[in-house]
Amino acid sequence: MKAALREDIPSLSHRSKKFESIYKDTVDGLRELLDLPADYHLFFTGSATEIWERIIQNLVEKNSFHLVNGSFSKRFFEIAQQLHKKPSKHEVSAGHAFPNALPISSDTELIAFTHNETSTGVSLPLDFIYNYKVTNPSALLVVDAVSSLPFPDFDYSKLDSVFFSVQKGFGLPAGLGVWMVNDRCIAKADELLSKGISIGSYHTIPSLKTHALKYQTPETPNVLGIYLLSKVVEDMVRRGIGKIRKETEYKAAVLYQTLDKQADLKPFVTDKAFQSKTVIVADTGEHTEKITKLLLEKGMQPGDGYGASKKSQLRFANFPTHSKEHFELLVDSLELL
Amino acid sequence: MKAALREDIPSLSHRSKKFESIYKDTVDGLRELLDLPADYHLFFTGSATEIWERIIQNLVEKNSFHLVNGSFSKRFFEIAQQLHKKPSKHEVSAGHAFPNALPISSDTELIAFTHNETSTGVSLPLDFIYNYKVTNPSALLVVDAVSSLPFPDFDYSKLDSVFFSVQKGFGLPAGLGVWMVNDRCIAKADELLSKGISIGSYHTIPSLKTHALKYQTPETPNVLGIYLLSKVVEDMVRRGIGKIRKETEYKAAVLYQTLDKQADLKPFVTDKAFQSKTVIVADTGEHTEKITKLLLEKGMQPGDGYGASKKSQLRFANFPTHSKEHFELLVDSLELL
Repeated sequence: MKAALREDIPSLSHRSKKFESIYKDTVDGLRELLDLPADYHLFFTGSATEIWERIIQNLVEKNSFHLVNGSFSKRFFEIAQQLHKKPSKHEVSAGHAFPNALPISSDTELIAFTHNETSTGVSLPLDFIYNYKVTNPSALLVVDAVSSLPFPDFDYSKLDSVFFSVQKGFGLPAGLGVWMVNDRCIAKADELLSKGISIGSYHTIPSLKTHALKYQTPETPNVLGIYLLSKVVEDMVRRGIGKIRKETEYKAAVLYQTLDKQADLKPFVTDKAFQSKTVIVADTGEHTEKITKLLLEKGMQPGDGYGASKKSQLRFANFPTHSKEHFELLVDSLELL
Repeated sequence: MKAALREDIPSLSHRSKKFESIYKDTVDGLRELLDLPADYHLFFTGSATEIWERIIQNLVEKNSFHLVNGSFSKRFFEIAQQLHKKPSKHEVSAGHAFPNALPISSDTELIAFTHNETSTGVSLPLDFIYNYKVTNPSALLVVDAVSSLPFPDFDYSKLDSVFFSVQKGFGLPAGLGVWMVNDRCIAKADELLSKGISIGSYHTIPSLKTHALKYQTPETPNVLGIYLLSKVVEDMVRRGIGKIRKETEYKAAVLYQTLDKQADLKPFVTDKAFQSKTVIVADTGEHTEKITKLLLEKGMQPGDGYGASKKSQLRFANFPTHSKEHFELLVDSLELL
């Protein structure tokens, strides 16, 4: 942020060459960090919530299918309803895994996965997602990775669109979404448009793509946010994504180990294959206040449980910005209980 | 920005009490600064471009009417087409005034005015706009004030919706739009929804209003942008809007006076009633490069002409952040030509 102020980024025109160079740095950096295939395009939006809407507008004529297991996956489904599509869903209760191989109708155009349910700490195993590429080859596989990237080592060739926002795993100020789509998504949006279906206005895939090819955006974007993302991505590439992933796994392992052995708190998600590494949710029941107080005294602020679980759960973010030392202090503190 | 870093705003949760208090400060400050009637509601979006889309979705079933006199007013019209409405327009060539009392069909639901065409420096006189409240009382009057607010002293009771983005007259980093709507707009969106028309998803007027009543947003917003806006608005209230407006008029007057008397540059907009006070466009023809060079030597950067006029015009922004001394230096420099 201090570098941004020195470089006068907050007043930089988004039609300037310098902005185009920042845009290019951000996209090139993300391509390298995430090892994206060449047929993926990257677009910027105001939020991941906006991307839910743009996905439904641009990639669904009628039938989307949603795997719902918490507030965020449910909202994605509801947006499809609000936009007058005919979405279907398979819903499981919060904290639970999905059964393997859900039967999904062959006329499904898009399957929506929430890789990491921020509300409950359930994360979908990657092979579970990829399997639908085999069972439903004509559907577009779309993955909400808001609170997991850059941790998951996705095989993007088995997916069609992945998106995130920058305030979680990238540790940046909120107000920017990143939407990655492959050529199948481009073709689908073109197809809907050629059928005379409205796919939106300034943030349609064709409009985003035309501008992205010039390292531009259709609207005046969050220039500062894009600049900050370019710098954080550069830093992550320098640290090495392998190292970031290993540290994330280590930090998750020590916390889950502690949750397993302490009496006053236990993992909310019991199926280990579905336990999130990046948002770890603990059932804390009547001990919530005591645990929160203890951690605050040590200078750590756990997240409240989501919605109805506000007073009976705590959520621990495990992002690249959280150091190993921070997690070691966290588990040492919890072991005092 | 430095205060924001000190207060840790970039990592503030948008579901926190502190965020709600910042939201409230911003809205209360804008109400005071702009003297908004009590029946106006304020919403935040990612950009003013987004607001064009939300206006068409939420406030038009079929018929909008657009006064088109440049790139931005034209884009607003095109968005209505992309969203499958039936917009009409009256188009005049760039830099020209509209005739008085355009005949607008009585079934028009919304009339779209671009108060200040950033591309050409044409500003609509306020009485010209208000007149349509008399001739078309059933239509909603919607004003794009992106590059004019906080300068214009609108009588909001004669309008229904006004919007702007923060990177122009408020001098802030881009990535935030402010959308002001009155109760007639709320009723119109509710009416469309009750007719079974899709008005969008997370950024519909009903959703924005429900959240705004709690000083919240439907999505994770640009928290830093909202905070910075609260501080700039607080500063403007302290300086006094009357003083800001008088200074804007003074700065515009000295620049237009110079344009009138210099041979190498003249005002592009010749009808004085339509000359913008906040974006002053000069025809510079073959002298563009020479003038740009002269100003750069004095430490000033004029804006290029827009689109096809890139090499034959210069645009001078006259926002609250530009001091009287800055404009005096500008006209002294131009008089050396």
